Amino acid sequence: MSRPNGTIASSGLELLTFGTPNGHKASIMLEEIKAAYGKPDYVFQSINIGENIQKEPWFTQYGPNGRIPVLIDHDNGDLGIMEGAAILAYMTRHFDPDNKFSFAKDPELSLCEQWVAWQTGGLGPMQGQANHFYRLAKERIPYPTQRYVGETERLYGILDARLKDNEYLVGNKYSIADIANYSWVNVSFFAGVDLEQFPNLHKWWQRISERPAVKKGVAVPSEPGITNGPFKEKLKNDQEFRQKHEELQEILKKAKEQYGYKYASP
Amino acid sequence: MSRPNGTIASSGLELLTFGTPNGHKASIMLEEIKAAYGKPDYVFQSINIGENIQKEPWFTQYGPNGRIPVLIDHDNGDLGIMEGAAILAYMTRHFDPDNKFSFAKDPELSLCEQWVAWQTGGLGPMQGQANHFYRLAKERIPYPTQRYVGETERLYGILDARLKDNEYLVGNKYSIADIANYSWVNVSFFAGVDLEQFPNLHKWWQRISERPAVKKGVAVPSEPGITNGPFKEKLKNDQEFRQKHEELQEILKKAKEQYGYKYASP
Repeated sequence: MSRPNGTIASSGLELLTFGTPNGHKASIMLEEIKAAYGKPDYVFQSINIGENIQKEPWFTQYGPNGRIPVLIDHDNGDLGIMEGAAILAYMTRHFDPDNKFSFAKDPELSLCEQWVAWQTGGLGPMQGQANHFYRLAKERIPYPTQRYVGETERLYGILDARLKDNEYLVGNKYSIADIANYSWVNVSFFAGVDLEQFPNLHKWWQRISERPAVKKGVAVPSEPGITNGPFKEKLKNDQEFRQKHEELQEILKKAKEQYGYKYASP
Repeated sequence: MSRPNGTIASSGLELLTFGTPNGHKASIMLEEIKAAYGKPDYVFQSINIGENIQKEPWFTQYGPNGRIPVLIDHDNGDLGIMEGAAILAYMTRHFDPDNKFSFAKDPELSLCEQWVAWQTGGLGPMQGQANHFYRLAKERIPYPTQRYVGETERLYGILDARLKDNEYLVGNKYSIADIANYSWVNVSFFAGVDLEQFPNLHKWWQRISERPAVKKGVAVPSEPGITNGPFKEKLKNDQEFRQKHEELQEILKKAKEQYGYKYASP
């Protein structure tokens, strides 16, 4: 595949994305809308963020922050829409007239906004930092490692409590609040967080994972290896991977001990 | 003042807040709406987050994340609204019928959602982490210090570029997109970021700082000492404070050098 260097459509929706939780938020929503309404279709381009394609002028004219995902609505003046939360709101407004994944009025409308914002400002950035310090950074530094994995666990505890008596986050209906949060919970193990520690959340994750549109959305732009399913398979079948995992878990455990961190349910 | 232990109003709006950027987002919006429309009035309570009042059951029934700000609409079934972005959306929907601080349709409506989400997911959490590692954490650790101050500078650069030919972030109109971002830019020095390095953003900050409703909102629940104005005054007049500042700046400079970080405008 050649390196993307411009848009590929001149009408309809075009998603610029990569196989990350923020990317999945957008692609799951697009697939859900398509499955529910039969339209709209969309095209997508894989933007390899390791190659900084998202920093190039053709990209940043649509998404000035230089980050995926960006949705372009070619039928609406080539409007570029950056930020997962704004993509979910836009898709809702224009393509979910029956509120199949959203809510028409308060209190559910506000509660849905709240749990999307909570994911945007809390779960996403904090789990992103957990990824970095637990796994991706060149050095393993104990203080930030336990800080971010710990905060991610606290946030999972908040979701778990919310789901104690509810099948979904808002109004007993699967909605964009679930889509936003699912995309991050779906990569918990990568960030060093054991999802099975949170039984209500784990069941919610299983329930949503079975949706055909979710499976399709998570496979855009390509099947990722870092989501919980493939991660746990790899743990079983790949000795080197398992050994690395155990090392990281040991470092995390020591970091937590060093700073007296202990998970307590909220 | 006694420790808050429950709501103090039974009708109208009640804001549970503290003098932080996220708190200011809500109180500035409430003051702007009141100044523009003459209503609604609201009451507020100061929730000292150092005393963990926001973790108590009476609080978390309205804001299950245990974080300020939380707005309660006693006239709407005592609905609790957590997350600044959701408070801005709620206030817009119910109390800004003429769209004085918001937009009725796309593309401005989407762009406004985008820049609010960008603040929620980027500027807020990253500058919050810069605060922590640059100033608040017990240890000064070079890698995360330069990581978060550097990312905050990158984000300021994005705003600065956006404001090059625009007085405000969206549609040449002061809106909730500006309110959300202002609240964090207003405490840049506390996070180790020199606002004057970003001339367009600096002018925008000055412009918004002069608004009477902004001055009132920033003083809720009490005049904070950490915003840029008082911060710079203190640098002039308080030798000990200045010395501490210079020490932190030196640590930051070394951390940036150690990891080869250099600001480049986007």
